[in-house]
This record gives sequence, structure tokens and C-alpha cells, in this order.
Amino acid sequence: MASPSALLWVPPRGPPSLSPSGCVHRGMPGRLGPPSQAGLEGRWVPPGEEGYRLLKEYSSAFMVSQVLFAACELGVFDLLAEAPEALGSAAVAARLGVSSRGTELLLDACVSLKLLQVEVRREKAVYESTELASTYLARASPKSQRDMLLYTARTTYLCWGHLAAAVRDGKNQYLKAFGVPSEELFTAIYRSQGERPQAVRGLQDEWRLGGPRVVAALDPSPFPCVCDLGGGSGALAKACMSLYPGSQVTVFDIPDVVQMAKRHFSFPEDERISFCEGDFFKDRLPEPDLCILARALHDWTGEKCSHLLGRTYQACKTGALPGSYSVCITLSVCGVLHLEPCS
Amino acid sequence: MASPSALLWVPPRGPPSLSPSGCVHRGMPGRLGPPSQAGLEGRWVPPGEEGYRLLKEYSSAFMVSQVLFAACELGVFDLLAEAPEALGSAAVAARLGVSSRGTELLLDACVSLKLLQVEVRREKAVYESTELASTYLARASPKSQRDMLLYTARTTYLCWGHLAAAVRDGKNQYLKAFGVPSEELFTAIYRSQGERPQAVRGLQDEWRLGGPRVVAALDPSPFPCVCDLGGGSGALAKACMSLYPGSQVTVFDIPDVVQMAKRHFSFPEDERISFCEGDFFKDRLPEPDLCILARALHDWTGEKCSHLLGRTYQACKTGALPGSYSVCITLSVCGVLHLEPCS
Repeated sequence: MASPSALLWVPPRGPPSLSPSGCVHRGMPGRLGPPSQAGLEGRWVPPGEEGYRLLKEYSSAFMVSQVLFAACELGVFDLLAEAPEALGSAAVAARLGVSSRGTELLLDACVSLKLLQVEVRREKAVYESTELASTYLARASPKSQRDMLLYTARTTYLCWGHLAAAVRDGKNQYLKAFGVPSEELFTAIYRSQGERPQAVRGLQDEWRLGGPRVVAALDPSPFPCVCDLGGGSGALAKACMSLYPGSQVTVFDIPDVVQMAKRHFSFPEDERISFCEGDFFKDRLPEPDLCILARALHDWTGEKCSHLLGRTYQACKTGALPGSYSVCITLSVCGVLHLEPCS
Repeated sequence: MASPSALLWVPPRGPPSLSPSGCVHRGMPGRLGPPSQAGLEGRWVPPGEEGYRLLKEYSSAFMVSQVLFAACELGVFDLLAEAPEALGSAAVAARLGVSSRGTELLLDACVSLKLLQVEVRREKAVYESTELASTYLARASPKSQRDMLLYTARTTYLCWGHLAAAVRDGKNQYLKAFGVPSEELFTAIYRSQGERPQAVRGLQDEWRLGGPRVVAALDPSPFPCVCDLGGGSGALAKACMSLYPGSQVTVFDIPDVVQMAKRHFSFPEDERISFCEGDFFKDRLPEPDLCILARALHDWTGEKCSHLLGRTYQACKTGALPGSYSVCITLSVCGVLHLEPCS
């Protein structure tokens, strides 16, 4: 009755004379790149077998993601960001209403990932956020990525659990993961009233951080009239506005998303942001000088993308100012950029 | 209609004049530690924001695990290990009977993780295993870890999807993951006739590699009579035998596991390995000079562990040779060692 269950190794907390940080952080200082040096450092690896070490990192990498996701979901980083001083694990467990042993293990795993730091005061370990956590994980931080992480934990992690089947079938696995047919992608992503704003807030997290940089790199200033196809809550439109106050941006999305965006997200500068409801595969598109398709094409088959790009091309061509030119910009999830002059 | 789905970025294959390896491998040579430099290197990260880069690595780390798991499950490494020459993605897809587009993406992701290598021959990309894959991932390799990876993919990955709930409740989540009550741990691990040998083969993968080193480090030679409690298929017992031919090892496990071990796994040297069926929490234990509890305690609550260690202590004490001493050795999943002299 032995089990193969593998766990992130969190070394037992040493006596006060043995610094907990000396015990938990054993990676080479200054060398980034966990999980190699962080959560998995304590695993037993035969000397000289670097390939085996790499394999162990890969096969346990999902545990690193889950430590991050669980600590976000339980509110660890919010609690520690708001607490006036470092807290012991029992206090964290009590305030979050979760198990004390589980909390102790989770906090130590977070320390090993450099999300928390620990020190011993009066023979008791107390925890506080690292700068990484207070900047990107606490809900109240302007750079918080918490909603994107929760979305990734609740949707993406489950879908990726079926990667072998996805490769076998050549299509997504929303049916296996959520019981929703694979053609109805957004029925899965927006599968409940609760999930929909979660997904949109997740996108906002990313655009809030990266949007201004992406927009500045693109420089849409020669194009007074911009359309963000599938623009969700208008997060990229906001970034456009803030850098180029002369722009007019139309956010085009399905009616449900537009209604939710108006309900949940405010647009103080909204004179220059307008919404248009429709299905970009079949309804009439706006006719702007510049179309943006950001993080949209990766959702669809090649055939559907060709159809959509053809429609976008026509819309830009029709909308182009006389003597000017129009452009369709597609942004993939990883920032790869395609610029297609349309006229 | 944009989606937050994040994907491992596999850069598009360049023209033949642009070496694919130059395109795919962009990490710093000689610096191990993906995913930082491998699967995730192409993600867009604001310059200077190392914390953000780390966060992206953590939040996407599960994708790295899944690329490895999916390629193992589909037989990519077995096919390439057996093929007389490097194969194109279409040939791999055809021989495995899986989608061609999915295969192309999976193979390129494996290249970025250094599991495969690619080169362009006659304007066509062809793939072959790296040494890492042929050593540890091909089914026929004596060091193969394939079964352990498949077990991790099918059981551990799913359980860890409920980590937040596990911390909240302070107990495992087999009920949510598999519909099996959390007290019946091994009903979940051995939840079908197919899963049981899979789990045991997974343990064998690890012991085959690490067992001889662990046994050599322990040096059980002063203890002629050894009992491996929860010893499953006898993999650690075999390692013991091969190093210390004078030993007698009794493998103690539940009847189902013992029956399966006898059915599935051979013991050519079995004169000195015997099996004993029982429940180590309540049935009479053997009375050896040395008890080993390897990868067993992490499965149980502190209370159950105390009970089990008490029983083990008594068994060793009874079994000790006059004038000698007995020892209970517990090995955790990460190789941490506790030696408890029992008499």
C-alpha cells in the first residue's frame, strides 16, 4: 500500500536557529527560472542525471501552477496584503476559514516559489507577501492578475487535462471538460453567469498591463476610427483612448458580452468608446480605418479564420478614408503581430 | 468574442534557410531550467518585469506537464525510438492515427521542451527523439518513466485540480476527482483493473531508477531479514536483492496488490523475495530485523501514521535477533529519510 502520489516538497520548518529561508530557498541566488530552483528543488535526483531532473520538473510543473491558483482562490495574497503585519499560518487559516495543516503546507509552498517570504519571530514562523505577490496577485493592486489566474485555474487547466484527446481528435475538448459541444466555444467559456464576468475580468487584467504597450507599439494614430472586433469589455479600447485621445473606438462583440460589459465595467471616458452588438461571422461589421482582432483568431479553425479575415478586409476597405489606407491587425495570444494592409 | 485561452507558443516553422532549431530553441544555451527558457519563452513579457515573467511561467507550467503527458500517452516517443530515421509530422500523425494539425503542434512543443529535435531535410521538418526522450520516455528503455508519467497524468493531475478545496477542507479530494470517498485512498488509486497495474508499474519505474541508489545509501546488510511494508510489486525488494544477495525480503501489501504483483510482475530471483498479504493497520505484521515504509506515510493522516509506526516498532522489536537491533526506515516521496532504532 504505497502510493505514487508526488507532492511538492516543502522541507520541515527547522528550529529557530536554522533560518527558514535558508531551509526553503535553496536555489542559486539570482538565477530565475523555477520550477527548477523553486518548488521542486527538494526532489531527489541522481547526481549527474540532468535529463532526469528536467523530466521531474516537467512532470511536476502543474503543481507549481496549482499552488499559485489555490493561494489566489483562497485569498492568501489579499489577506497578507491587507494585514498590518506578517501573520502566522494559524492566523491565516483562521481568517480564511480553511484547514490549518493545509494552510501551513500551502504557505510554505508559496515561500518556495517566492510568492511569500517567511521569517521566525519569537520562535514562530510568520509570512508576508513578496513584491511579486503584492504587485500581481493582491486583488486591490492596479496590476493584479488575479482574475486571469482564477480563469486559468477554472477553465484552462481542465481543458488541458484532455490534451492527448485534443491532439487525437484535432479539436478542443470542451465537451469532455464541461459537457459543452466543441463548436460552442463561448458557451463553455461563458458557461455561467458567474464565469462570464470572470473570463472578461481576466482579459482586462492582461490588457490593463500590456494594452498601453501594445497600442503604443502599433501607433494607431493615423487611423481615427478603430474597431476592436471581439473587444469584450473594452479594455484594449481604453488603452487606445488613453494614449490617443483623438481616436474613436468601436467595440464589436456578441450581445451577451456587450450587455455584461455595460453592466459590470464603467467607461468614464466613454464618449469616444461605443459598443456594437453582433456576430462577427455573419452580421454587418463596422467600417473603420483600422480593425483589431486581438486574441481572437486562436479560438477558431483555419477555415473560420479565413472567413473572418475576408470579412474584416472588406469592412476596412469599405471604411477607408479616400486617399488613406486601412489595416487589419491581428494579435495572437503571445504578442505575435500580423499587419495586413487592406487598401 | 476574444478568449483568454493561453497556449504554449510554438513559433511558426521558418523557411529552410532559417534553421528550425534556431527558431524553436531560443533559450540561453547550457542553462537548464524550463519552462523559463523552453515552452514559454515566446510569451510576451514587458521588459524589466521579471516578477511578471515568473508569474507567467507558474501560471502556464501545467501546459508543460501536459505536453509531456500527451506525447507519452499517444506513443510519440515509442514511435520515434523505433523508427529507423527521423519522421515528418504527417508520418507521425498517420502512424499514430491522430490529427495532423494537432500532431504538428505537439511535436513542435516537444522540441521547445528539448524532448524532440527537429531539422529540415528537403524543405521538410523531420523529428527525432533527444537523448532525454529515448532514455526516459520510450517504453522499451530500461530507464523508462512512461508508466509513472501516465499515472501522474491520469490521477495526480486531476487531484491537484482541487488543491484549493483540499486546503480548505484539510483532506484529499478523491471524492471530487473520482467519486471515491477520501478515506478509501487506494480505491481511488486502484480504481479499475486497468489503473491498478498502471499505478504499480509507475512505482516500478521510479524504484528501478532510484532503488539501487537508495538501498546502497541505507546499507541494509546488517539486517538479514527485511520487510517492505506496502511494497507493492516488489521493486524495492528487487533492488535490495541485487545489491545484497544475502537478504531475505518480505513484501507486505493488501491481497489485491499481492495477487496482481504475482500475476503481472516476474521474480526470477524469487527464492529470497516472499509476499505476505494483509492490511498493515490491523493484520499481524512480519517480525523482521528491518522494516521499510517507503512512500507510504504521505498517504495517511498523522493519527494513522502514528498508529502504523507504533505497530512497525513493535514488530521490529519482536523480530530483532538477540543482541542485535532493529530499525524502521521511512522514506518519503522526496527521499527524506527517517531512521528509528526500535530496540
